Amino acid sequence: MPKIDARLPKGMRDFLPGEVLKREYVIGVITDVFQTFGFEPIYTPTLEMLETLLGKGGEEADKLLFHAQHPGGKEQLGLRYDLTVPLARYVAMHENDLTMPFRRYHIAPVWRGDRPQKGRYREFFQCDVDIVGVASMAADAEIVSLLTTALGRLGFADFTVHINNRKLLTGIGIHAGVPEAQLGDLYRSVDKLDKIGLDGVKKELTASGIAGDAIGRMMDLLQHREGGLDALRQVRAQLAGVPVALEGIGELEQMVEYLGALGVEESRFTVDLAMVRGLGYYTGPVYETYITKPDNLGSVTGGGRYDELVGMFRGQSLPTTGSSLGIERIIDLLDLLNLYPPELTGTVVQVIVTVFGERTQGASLALANELRAAGIRTEAIMTPRRAIGKQVQYADRKGARLVAFLGEDEIKAGQVKLKRLSDGQEVTVPRAEAAAAARRLLVG
Amino acid sequence: MPKIDARLPKGMRDFLPGEVLKREYVIGVITDVFQTFGFEPIYTPTLEMLETLLGKGGEEADKLLFHAQHPGGKEQLGLRYDLTVPLARYVAMHENDLTMPFRRYHIAPVWRGDRPQKGRYREFFQCDVDIVGVASMAADAEIVSLLTTALGRLGFADFTVHINNRKLLTGIGIHAGVPEAQLGDLYRSVDKLDKIGLDGVKKELTASGIAGDAIGRMMDLLQHREGGLDALRQVRAQLAGVPVALEGIGELEQMVEYLGALGVEESRFTVDLAMVRGLGYYTGPVYETYITKPDNLGSVTGGGRYDELVGMFRGQSLPTTGSSLGIERIIDLLDLLNLYPPELTGTVVQVIVTVFGERTQGASLALANELRAAGIRTEAIMTPRRAIGKQVQYADRKGARLVAFLGEDEIKAGQVKLKRLSDGQEVTVPRAEAAAAARRLLVG
Repeated sequence: MPKIDARLPKGMRDFLPGEVLKREYVIGVITDVFQTFGFEPIYTPTLEMLETLLGKGGEEADKLLFHAQHPGGKEQLGLRYDLTVPLARYVAMHENDLTMPFRRYHIAPVWRGDRPQKGRYREFFQCDVDIVGVASMAADAEIVSLLTTALGRLGFADFTVHINNRKLLTGIGIHAGVPEAQLGDLYRSVDKLDKIGLDGVKKELTASGIAGDAIGRMMDLLQHREGGLDALRQVRAQLAGVPVALEGIGELEQMVEYLGALGVEESRFTVDLAMVRGLGYYTGPVYETYITKPDNLGSVTGGGRYDELVGMFRGQSLPTTGSSLGIERIIDLLDLLNLYPPELTGTVVQVIVTVFGERTQGASLALANELRAAGIRTEAIMTPRRAIGKQVQYADRKGARLVAFLGEDEIKAGQVKLKRLSDGQEVTVPRAEAAAAARRLLVG
Repeated sequence: MPKIDARLPKGMRDFLPGEVLKREYVIGVITDVFQTFGFEPIYTPTLEMLETLLGKGGEEADKLLFHAQHPGGKEQLGLRYDLTVPLARYVAMHENDLTMPFRRYHIAPVWRGDRPQKGRYREFFQCDVDIVGVASMAADAEIVSLLTTALGRLGFADFTVHINNRKLLTGIGIHAGVPEAQLGDLYRSVDKLDKIGLDGVKKELTASGIAGDAIGRMMDLLQHREGGLDALRQVRAQLAGVPVALEGIGELEQMVEYLGALGVEESRFTVDLAMVRGLGYYTGPVYETYITKPDNLGSVTGGGRYDELVGMFRGQSLPTTGSSLGIERIIDLLDLLNLYPPELTGTVVQVIVTVFGERTQGASLALANELRAAGIRTEAIMTPRRAIGKQVQYADRKGARLVAFLGEDEIKAGQVKLKRLSDGQEVTVPRAEAAAAARRLLVG
């Protein structure tokens, strides 16, 4: 047989069974929380029309996009690079079948031709949850409540959702006297506050030509960055003449009130005036979750309100707020923090039924069938000439918890022998009690 | 806001939430059965190297393949068109991390640039289950046992697995005197037996230049097509001089014995000498499941042993047997036959909490939070100015079962009113008993 070289495209991954089981566990927990909050799943195809993907001013996207076409195909297609553009297209196409507000989640792979690097892949999963069609801050608060619930259910103990409002950021810029054209520079620098400190931000802003007194006014306000509602009150006094800032402050206060109603503990969130979020499309609240212990693990969720985007295929905006959960990072962190539940052993099979010879293969299969009928995940060995010792080794390597023996002697006596691999405990029971005995050994 | 045209590529589909829930139910049932049989999940990326996809003599594949590339990318990539080629590549690349035999399942979309037509799509799910590394007929029997279990668990009552063996078919051809170069024509015609009848097959074979006496000898054997083990015995006598035929018959008999051991009822399968299965790569047993009532729904599973394929990237063959479950067809058939469980209502949310005004929005959110904490899937309405009647209409359209009312009066009295939409039953309970009361109404 001629050998063909087996390799994967750059930046793409296979997952071994144990890894798939972990990924499915995480997706299962998150899905369950989404549904408890009344969110519904959607499915969209991997390939979209190129014009759909490039719809939202897409030069940035075009650099990352995987283009696709089949021989003879005339359509220009591409693989989706996020789940937001498909949502916008979906809402426009199915508006008659959807009841607004529409609460949807979408957990699916996306593709980006980024330069691969550690922890960055060209195919990776995104996990988005959004409320489409609600302008009230109740929706933003509910997304935050959902995020804290999901992270808690996954076992994260120490995390904080940082909350800010794009309108307040704009207001701060206006108050400081930063020209509108330079607001982008402003946000980019403030975004680095944690990394480069107040002085670093000051230096960057000066370098980008923003006047010294403007920078000074801004720094005054950013001092209050994590002061919570008290800080908001102080900032409000300073920004009394800037309507958009007051609007942002009002929204933040309203959101904090609703977070209380939803039972989100105060220790779980903080109003952070310096939290910017990179994406340009946010229009109101923004929120991002950081793991606080251990430190420096970065953010695990990011989102906000983006009222202008989801309507882009229908010619009329739709108020929308929502978040991504960084599911790839969350999967890695559960490993790092040892948060996977102990019953997730990375293996499927619980019992391996050995086989002593060709003549008893049928009996072994029959036993496997009975164990399966009782809901026990069972594999029957089908290499009757292999030594029993090797078969037990195989069971051990596979991570099975029990091994069943059904030799000629056991068959004659109408019995089965079961052995637990972890402690070597053995029981021999009548054939009819095999499933019950196996279950006892499995829970023990 | 300028409007961009929202459309899908040809042959691609979105799924509405209710459809996604049905698909996930089917995948869940099948996954559960796979795991009970000790099979493990794998994940492979959507994009493969073009050379991997074209590896197995791929002109046929190349006509269907979606090619992919990102700007600046030098790799020639394509979207997978099946799950077998990725399995072969996976086994070759991860052999050191896998313990043979390897029982894997894989449920994932594949892409083919076929001409779209009713019920045929360019992105569709495949569901494959295979045992890699076992030559014994026990493996083939176990796959059939698994298929009947899965179809039974999905609620199918009337179906039959047709079983044949590629070696026996070859033997019949040799016995009849059909030249090896024409065996392909032979199989293609015999495959149509159900559609065109014995006479039709005869006519086709004559047209393709196969000698009349060869056709006659073949027809003699095919008469026994569904006679089960008795037929096998008769055919064995006629084929006594053809070793490959005897080998095939021996394998069939062994497989039938193991099916018995595995508790597969005799009514569930039939040895069918005229069942061919299209694909050229089968080397031993082949098996295909037909729904028998109602008639003419076609096959829902197809598979067999293909010992030469999975080894193609490692230069050494690996005995493998397995099956595809036609999951897209199964999903459609469950609708057609009304087999979805009644609790699968097509909607996620169970309770809608209405809101009487902005002042009580917080109280409504708090109630929603309590119901969620009790595991009840709950949505809170966030449009306080909408009339309560409209809110109840919304709950009805969403398919919620209960509506909760928390007006100023209820709040003052420390109560909540719950209404079941199906029969209009209402209860007013103390606030602290809301979750318990909701649960009672939901099961009632």
